[in-house]
Amino acid sequence: MDSSINFSMKEIDGDKAFMKKIRIGIVGYGNLGRGVQYAAEQNKDVEVVAVFTRRDPSQVNTVLPVKVERYEAMADYADKIDVMILCGGSATDLPEQSSAIVKMFNTVDSFDTHARIPEYFAKLDSAAKETGHLGAMSIGWDPGLFSLARLYFGSALAEGSTYTFWGKGVSQGHSDAIRRINGVKDAKQYTVPVASALERVRAGENPVLTVREKHTRECYVVAEEGADLSRIEKEIKEMPNYFADYDTTVHFISEEELKEKHSGIPHGGMVLRSGTSYTGNHFLMEFSLKLDSNPEFTSSVLLAYARAVYRLHAEGRTGAVTVFDIAPKYLSPMTEADQRKELL
Amino acid sequence: MDSSINFSMKEIDGDKAFMKKIRIGIVGYGNLGRGVQYAAEQNKDVEVVAVFTRRDPSQVNTVLPVKVERYEAMADYADKIDVMILCGGSATDLPEQSSAIVKMFNTVDSFDTHARIPEYFAKLDSAAKETGHLGAMSIGWDPGLFSLARLYFGSALAEGSTYTFWGKGVSQGHSDAIRRINGVKDAKQYTVPVASALERVRAGENPVLTVREKHTRECYVVAEEGADLSRIEKEIKEMPNYFADYDTTVHFISEEELKEKHSGIPHGGMVLRSGTSYTGNHFLMEFSLKLDSNPEFTSSVLLAYARAVYRLHAEGRTGAVTVFDIAPKYLSPMTEADQRKELL
Repeated sequence: MDSSINFSMKEIDGDKAFMKKIRIGIVGYGNLGRGVQYAAEQNKDVEVVAVFTRRDPSQVNTVLPVKVERYEAMADYADKIDVMILCGGSATDLPEQSSAIVKMFNTVDSFDTHARIPEYFAKLDSAAKETGHLGAMSIGWDPGLFSLARLYFGSALAEGSTYTFWGKGVSQGHSDAIRRINGVKDAKQYTVPVASALERVRAGENPVLTVREKHTRECYVVAEEGADLSRIEKEIKEMPNYFADYDTTVHFISEEELKEKHSGIPHGGMVLRSGTSYTGNHFLMEFSLKLDSNPEFTSSVLLAYARAVYRLHAEGRTGAVTVFDIAPKYLSPMTEADQRKELL
Repeated sequence: MDSSINFSMKEIDGDKAFMKKIRIGIVGYGNLGRGVQYAAEQNKDVEVVAVFTRRDPSQVNTVLPVKVERYEAMADYADKIDVMILCGGSATDLPEQSSAIVKMFNTVDSFDTHARIPEYFAKLDSAAKETGHLGAMSIGWDPGLFSLARLYFGSALAEGSTYTFWGKGVSQGHSDAIRRINGVKDAKQYTVPVASALERVRAGENPVLTVREKHTRECYVVAEEGADLSRIEKEIKEMPNYFADYDTTVHFISEEELKEKHSGIPHGGMVLRSGTSYTGNHFLMEFSLKLDSNPEFTSSVLLAYARAVYRLHAEGRTGAVTVFDIAPKYLSPMTEADQRKELL
């Protein structure tokens, strides 16, 4: 086998420009929606037809030229869009939107409220089947590629322990929680994996790790003038669910420093499985991501799964699916023969 | 999501002992065949029915109790085995056996002669379809899990470079090549990834790397008494294809030292993809394996895919398939609902 495969999908698909492109719609235009537009530029077999927003379309400035429509105008696009990528949030947008939209279009979403996945799946599945559409849910890197790692690793190595570490990266939820504290002007929170815990896993110790032992939380906070810093620090560190179970560090910095050093949205992490064979031989499997931009990477994964959804639906598949249900071949723009020749 | 998932397939399936087990046959009884027997002990939903060998069955000592049959007796097992795991070599065994056996049974094999994959696929596919069976080919970690990483990574990140590094690990083919040299009593060859090349990839340089820049080769050689060591060293280092394109180190050691320090068959490696978004944000994806025993891990993967083949065939799927064609859900002994609940 060739030891290195260097290619760009753009080059591979350069001579397929005559092919019918997969027509994508974007619902919701925040970081994820912008990311889908960017990713579409890198994948020559797709085109973004329109963005749908609940804001006033004339007030939405897109990063690349595209038609912006009102959310309600979606129905007019039934024959013009193959897959809708839902770029809203998991808290309120997706639970309400996905099962309505999937009655009109095939969909892909990044629903990530883990505890609600079973009910979300059931609802999406029945809505999609009503009209013969296909909806892929919980797509991205976690849930998404990390979920795949957990499943492949667990299947390949029956006896062992699987670990997921996140970071170093920005948690939007935790940053928001700090911003809601009285006297806080702005804040950014980093989730950081504990290096020593990671080392114990890699060494094959199969440790049982508490929440506190796996991650620390680093907070960069801009306080309002005259605010009581020690009160703010205490409120952060004692906040239940978000911080109380972690070793948390709070740094008060200026607004300028926050802008300058903490304006990115990096993230990443790793999934590890450590286990042994029947004879006691040790195996370590590890999948890691280092992402300069969490939303842009997530969008790129959403787009690959939009391709898969388009193809699976063309084969007659309907209902709700997750990354577990989709054979890898559907994700790649390469032909199956080329996949076997170049990648196997 | 739970940050750590610690489970053993044994425990999960402990209460399913009443279920019909997947009946496995093993064809060929070397390191891989033994590994399948070991792996079956760790997966409660499978059972090994028989081993088939071209040797005299009475001369085959199995590592765990199992019926050993003549290769020709296979036909008598048509109704007694669900999936045959072919544990022969890629050079001569598999090309000859797989398309014959797949006419009687569903099969899984680890065919790894990369250049011959397209023709092997075509032959297996047509043979399998003749009798309505399913054959999964090129299963293991490379080809296999590493192929999956190359495809998933390339699909998730359209613009970038993919790299595969192998090792540190024992290459059986290279060890054999050294053993064929006149005056060599025994030898073990390690393939070692070049750390500085790996660092350049991880740093996002997207370097173009020659064969020599990616791996070095370390040889531990036991020479026959009185052999010309400098001639042996020269013959190794100048051997075309195997060593000439690499920086190769040769260590002459005693037979005792070889046994003591180099009797294992460890291997591993990593697949990396480094790329950028349309806006220039950098992403690094990495999958790595560290395996104390190459054949035992490969066998463990073969067994997971035997489960998938059994299920896919039950759904009516026939022909040849690779890891690219098989949705991840088929590999896991967990129910689909549990997969979504526990792993997504």
